[in-house]
Amino acid sequence: MEVSELNKYGICDGISEIILTSGIENPNAAPIGVIRKDNRVFIRLYRGSTTYENVKLEKIFAANVTCDPVLFVKSSFSNLENENFRYYPLNTTKIPLLKNSASSVIFRCGEIKHTEQAMTAEIIPMDAVANDYRPRAINRGLTAVIEAAVHATRYELTGDNKFLDLIDQCMETTYKCGGQREKDAAEILLNEIYENKKRVDGGKSTE
Amino acid sequence: MEVSELNKYGICDGISEIILTSGIENPNAAPIGVIRKDNRVFIRLYRGSTTYENVKLEKIFAANVTCDPVLFVKSSFSNLENENFRYYPLNTTKIPLLKNSASSVIFRCGEIKHTEQAMTAEIIPMDAVANDYRPRAINRGLTAVIEAAVHATRYELTGDNKFLDLIDQCMETTYKCGGQREKDAAEILLNEIYENKKRVDGGKSTE
Repeated sequence: MEVSELNKYGICDGISEIILTSGIENPNAAPIGVIRKDNRVFIRLYRGSTTYENVKLEKIFAANVTCDPVLFVKSSFSNLENENFRYYPLNTTKIPLLKNSASSVIFRCGEIKHTEQAMTAEIIPMDAVANDYRPRAINRGLTAVIEAAVHATRYELTGDNKFLDLIDQCMETTYKCGGQREKDAAEILLNEIYENKKRVDGGKSTE
Repeated sequence: MEVSELNKYGICDGISEIILTSGIENPNAAPIGVIRKDNRVFIRLYRGSTTYENVKLEKIFAANVTCDPVLFVKSSFSNLENENFRYYPLNTTKIPLLKNSASSVIFRCGEIKHTEQAMTAEIIPMDAVANDYRPRAINRGLTAVIEAAVHATRYELTGDNKFLDLIDQCMETTYKCGGQREKDAAEILLNEIYENKKRVDGGKSTE
């Protein structure tokens, strides 16, 4: 499969926010940016994540294109329930995909570079499926809740309150512009942050 | 056509960022948020715009769903070239549509309320077309350039430099995450702002 064919499956030039599924035995999902530039495609994965371990070991995974904010938020903080996965047979193995994606592309790793914190892999598209999909107007509430999830994972790592302010700004846009699905995602996100803040504040009081 | 059918054409709950085409004699395009809530749909149009005048007069228009950032940015500042329009025959008239939309929905106005600055209309879907469309992964650079266009129109109205700072933040995301089409849109936008800033600064120096 040629890189140029990725256009058909929604992975275009620039950084595509997708949900990466990996783990042939124990399927795992996590939101990742896929970088496509000059007809080559890359991902960067940070050490310590399940995705990092899976891809390092198996060197194969799927990039799932979806606009479902609940899947993005849930997979930012924990794994998705088993019912969200299905399997795609490839040679003698089977790759986990997201069941309700608009499309899914199977990639294998080409050259991998390791740094202290992360690995960067050039990735090669092998096969793809397009599911039943519909046009969708741009919704600022959708992107805002996904941005908020990015800030929330940084808050989890650092405990820095500036991320809470950024999340507040995103939430304002989500509640103003989002539909019910965006608001459901926001609620899951805010609950996760609340639990995390309790841990951070608890940690501080015992210092 | 039922409001619930709008899901198929990409106009879902919340605020959908679409390009509104209006003007049976002289077609015009402008980006607008379509508000869908509790199975009703609304638009708010500000006085002084061509869209306001067209919709007030003809009470019919099309909402075009697209992810093309260049069309959003161009139609924020000026009209689109004639080659971007096509016509949809409806009863004895013909409604301008965006030629390359993912989908287009024809709306007529129901109840209209006027305030000093704007009119709010409940809008009723009459007919719709879905064109050839593809899935597209979320791209933060795309939304950022559309946000920047919103800030830029506010800068045009007010000359307030805070909007320039917000545009800078958006541009950073667009150049980092966007593809070529997003970068093309950013260039058009920055050029428009530059021209406008010259006018604002020129205006100030003669005060």
